[in-house]
Amino acid sequence: MTVTVDPISAIAEESAPTTRCRIIATAERSFREIGYQKTTVADIAKTLKMSPANVYRFFDSKKAINEAVVGRLTREVEVLILAIAEAPGLSAADRLSEMITALHRDCLERCEAFPRMHEMVEAAMTESWVVCRHHVDSIVAVFERIIAEGVRRGEFAVEDTRLAAACVHAAVVRYCHPVLVSQCPEAPVPPLDAMIAFLLRGLMPAR
Amino acid sequence: MTVTVDPISAIAEESAPTTRCRIIATAERSFREIGYQKTTVADIAKTLKMSPANVYRFFDSKKAINEAVVGRLTREVEVLILAIAEAPGLSAADRLSEMITALHRDCLERCEAFPRMHEMVEAAMTESWVVCRHHVDSIVAVFERIIAEGVRRGEFAVEDTRLAAACVHAAVVRYCHPVLVSQCPEAPVPPLDAMIAFLLRGLMPAR
Repeated sequence: MTVTVDPISAIAEESAPTTRCRIIATAERSFREIGYQKTTVADIAKTLKMSPANVYRFFDSKKAINEAVVGRLTREVEVLILAIAEAPGLSAADRLSEMITALHRDCLERCEAFPRMHEMVEAAMTESWVVCRHHVDSIVAVFERIIAEGVRRGEFAVEDTRLAAACVHAAVVRYCHPVLVSQCPEAPVPPLDAMIAFLLRGLMPAR
Repeated sequence: MTVTVDPISAIAEESAPTTRCRIIATAERSFREIGYQKTTVADIAKTLKMSPANVYRFFDSKKAINEAVVGRLTREVEVLILAIAEAPGLSAADRLSEMITALHRDCLERCEAFPRMHEMVEAAMTESWVVCRHHVDSIVAVFERIIAEGVRRGEFAVEDTRLAAACVHAAVVRYCHPVLVSQCPEAPVPPLDAMIAFLLRGLMPAR
């Protein structure tokens, strides 16, 4: 869309980071309370007492707003995982185990606090795969770092650390994906500890 | 609901299995073409040139119809997996590998032929977990049989075959679950062969 920049919007431009953040926060609250499907850009603008055109100056679509909301959420998860990667005094197996457990708990907690989160995540999955890909790549990169550390220490025996990291990540999707965690809480799934032990066996050298 | 049985409906009762099957087939076609969300019991009845009340004589809700449709679909998948379990001359590792590959291919093909299948599956996941649980239990039982066979042959070294089977099943959900397969086709995921090799490593005795 074409936007005419007048002196007033030029002033607004200066406060862009703040306005952007307010739009993201308002959108997230609305996705949480009303759901992604039912939230419109007009609703978000109305809550912020601004015109939809002003929202469109920052985000060219609801999809773009969702990308920012999902991006903020996934960065929070990435920070959590990095903290475990850098915590002192853990073996590689413990680190990997704590990371997977943290991903699972974080997903459970978010799904509980935000029962419509899966709508937002499904929209991101179908419309914004770059955001999804970036998140998966970030987590897999940290897993890889830890697996490589485990190989150096003789804890693990893995030829392709990147592939092993991607396999571990894909193998725990049942425990860490909002759509599966929120929509099928009662479905049969082995305890996470058993799953982690099973995956670590696949990484370890001769038993 | 209360149903008054008159002579005509008593005759209809005799053809119940056929009518039941026709309702299931019509519902499946409608879920496929229009989607689960938009299909109503009235639509199904109209296509079959019968009254909604007659449909309700066989199924007390759209949810019950969906359970029958999903049940038929999952039985087809179970038959496919059983055929691999019983094929002659395969090692346990080959059997498990072929089963996982078959589950993945079947899911891909169905999602392609039936782009709205995930709606139906998500409805089953949230409303009909007994159907989902039954399907997971059936597949895990076959996996367990093959893992136990592998342990007997010395191919695998696993203490709890049931738990190992459940872990393998949960670990491949990314490749075999219609919601993940259909909604995130572009997302990064390791090749299935690499994932199978990784999981088999976790089952095998000392390397």
